[in-house]
Amino acid sequence: MKVLIDDKVHNYHSIWMEDEIIFAIDQRKLPFIFEIFEAKTLKDTCFAIKEMVVRGAPLIGVTTAYGLLQVSMTSKEVDIRKFISVIKNAMNKLSKTRPTAVDLFNAINRIEQVLDEKETVQQNQQKIKIEVEKIEEETLQEAKQIGEVGNAVIPENGVVMTICNAGALATIDYGTALAPIRKAHESKKNITVYVNETRPRMQGARLTAWELYNESIEHYIIADSAAGYYLSQKKIDVVIVGADRVTFNGDVANKIGTYTLSVLCKENNVPFYIALPHSTFDLNLEFGKDIIIEQRDGLEVQTAMSIDTIDDIEVKRRIIHFPESKNLNPAFDITPAQNVTGYITPSGIVKPSEIRKFLKK
Amino acid sequence: MKVLIDDKVHNYHSIWMEDEIIFAIDQRKLPFIFEIFEAKTLKDTCFAIKEMVVRGAPLIGVTTAYGLLQVSMTSKEVDIRKFISVIKNAMNKLSKTRPTAVDLFNAINRIEQVLDEKETVQQNQQKIKIEVEKIEEETLQEAKQIGEVGNAVIPENGVVMTICNAGALATIDYGTALAPIRKAHESKKNITVYVNETRPRMQGARLTAWELYNESIEHYIIADSAAGYYLSQKKIDVVIVGADRVTFNGDVANKIGTYTLSVLCKENNVPFYIALPHSTFDLNLEFGKDIIIEQRDGLEVQTAMSIDTIDDIEVKRRIIHFPESKNLNPAFDITPAQNVTGYITPSGIVKPSEIRKFLKK
Repeated sequence: MKVLIDDKVHNYHSIWMEDEIIFAIDQRKLPFIFEIFEAKTLKDTCFAIKEMVVRGAPLIGVTTAYGLLQVSMTSKEVDIRKFISVIKNAMNKLSKTRPTAVDLFNAINRIEQVLDEKETVQQNQQKIKIEVEKIEEETLQEAKQIGEVGNAVIPENGVVMTICNAGALATIDYGTALAPIRKAHESKKNITVYVNETRPRMQGARLTAWELYNESIEHYIIADSAAGYYLSQKKIDVVIVGADRVTFNGDVANKIGTYTLSVLCKENNVPFYIALPHSTFDLNLEFGKDIIIEQRDGLEVQTAMSIDTIDDIEVKRRIIHFPESKNLNPAFDITPAQNVTGYITPSGIVKPSEIRKFLKK
Repeated sequence: MKVLIDDKVHNYHSIWMEDEIIFAIDQRKLPFIFEIFEAKTLKDTCFAIKEMVVRGAPLIGVTTAYGLLQVSMTSKEVDIRKFISVIKNAMNKLSKTRPTAVDLFNAINRIEQVLDEKETVQQNQQKIKIEVEKIEEETLQEAKQIGEVGNAVIPENGVVMTICNAGALATIDYGTALAPIRKAHESKKNITVYVNETRPRMQGARLTAWELYNESIEHYIIADSAAGYYLSQKKIDVVIVGADRVTFNGDVANKIGTYTLSVLCKENNVPFYIALPHSTFDLNLEFGKDIIIEQRDGLEVQTAMSIDTIDDIEVKRRIIHFPESKNLNPAFDITPAQNVTGYITPSGIVKPSEIRKFLKK
């Protein structure tokens, strides 16, 4: 990911580790302020996920993996049972940060499977390190592959619509839904992106817009409620979004508003794609209706992160609703499999009718 | 309309005239600041409509009528041709303030029709006054009738969803879409209202929420993108919205996001009603596709009216998007007649299949 700060271009990952410290771009105040958050303890890591310093399903998975590696590396336990108990306690804490993104639980499961009471603490630490590096490597690799695969659904001079941020900031780099867009741009297709601002937290208008700007990809931000207008006007060739969890039957949990886009696409015959790595499939859940939908604080809807002027930047959440009213804030919704044209996966595009067969492999 | 200010309840209309001055609740800073705007000249009146001091199709119509009455009353012309030319010049200026609400043009047409070159200036002034008072009286009367008629579609313990503000603030009092809600509440139905916040200008979260609070009607504000979630969860019994213009075939121009709600209602078998006075029907246009959709300044999307804290109220439009990105801001969209369950009019509920017959009467 190239990032423009003070007119200089830097190359960044959204997250990385140095020794036992996790470094991550703080996504709460982006794009107004670019800051690196340092997580030195498990408490910091849990805070980072819960308070959305990091967000996006694949990145939540990687952060979880890094968090467990950090706990493993900093543990002073010499007794293997106690060591494993420390790791499992950390897993328990991490699992309670956010309920919807399955990548979090998939990362925990993968690391849980390498734990071995019959081996030494050092051997376990080494195994955890190897598994976390595999998760990291796969996340980077799969994002690139999603880009290659998904580029096929974007026409020359194509107009793509997306919601939320499924970009480099939602993975380690490159993105899921933004990966095909990046690849199309790299391959000189003259594309335009319509970015749903993505209330309440504005991940589209804050994060996706910022990424597209940094990549010099032509784009427009629209209010979420304007998506229907542009889809009905036949302005959009294809909608590509990310996912927080896809169940065995192909139902999709993703950012609130995704279901609405899928219904609008069906109504207007616009292809609707979900771009996701393998870690976002949930092989333990059959149907979307069984996914827990996170209800976040109504204050997130009542306020918006804002700045007064471009020059005088005091980034604050400020009140934009009538403050005496109650708010409801479901963070995700469920898009039924039959509304999906295809799943853009690292190993190819999968149709809803083929998803069970694909996942059983 | 009862209004709570400083813990006192007042009775207000959203607009009124005293002598030649037009007074209107300034809707730009509501609900954070309650101020009365005074329009003393045609320039003030045009400003009030264009800058959305007043908004809502029926209120735009009444403001236009008051504006013409003001010009008529303050004109010093004694020559009838010159007087009529002054009125027509005012009509021309008012017609350029906002393009979508047909009530504006219907008010102009009604007043244009009473002008008579064969009579004196004084006689013309008197006729304009009578016509404006008729418009005023009809607007008040029709809002009440819409309430009576529309109450029938709201069940006992009903949950109603709406978008934007089609309340007392969009008419002189009582409202269009909010009229059945007020009536249902008055008749002791235990109702709940889901209010779409209505980006970009937040008329739902600022104005409708404020009206419902003042009436002690239970309500929740949601992000526009959460409407699909609640409609798919079968939480909503009926959706009632207003209109800016309804064409001869029943197509509806209304606040951006209305079309999306209609598609979501169709998908989830939720009744979708348009509540409107007769002045919002456009008998000169056949199809919705011929309605001019107002594209407003992208700055409205890039910013949100906000306050820092409840105690320290500095109401300002502040930046909430990445400021380097471009924004698109269509203010309205078109809902095709076939997505509408019925039109709640002052003279009864009309089905889309009956709309031509109804309008030909």
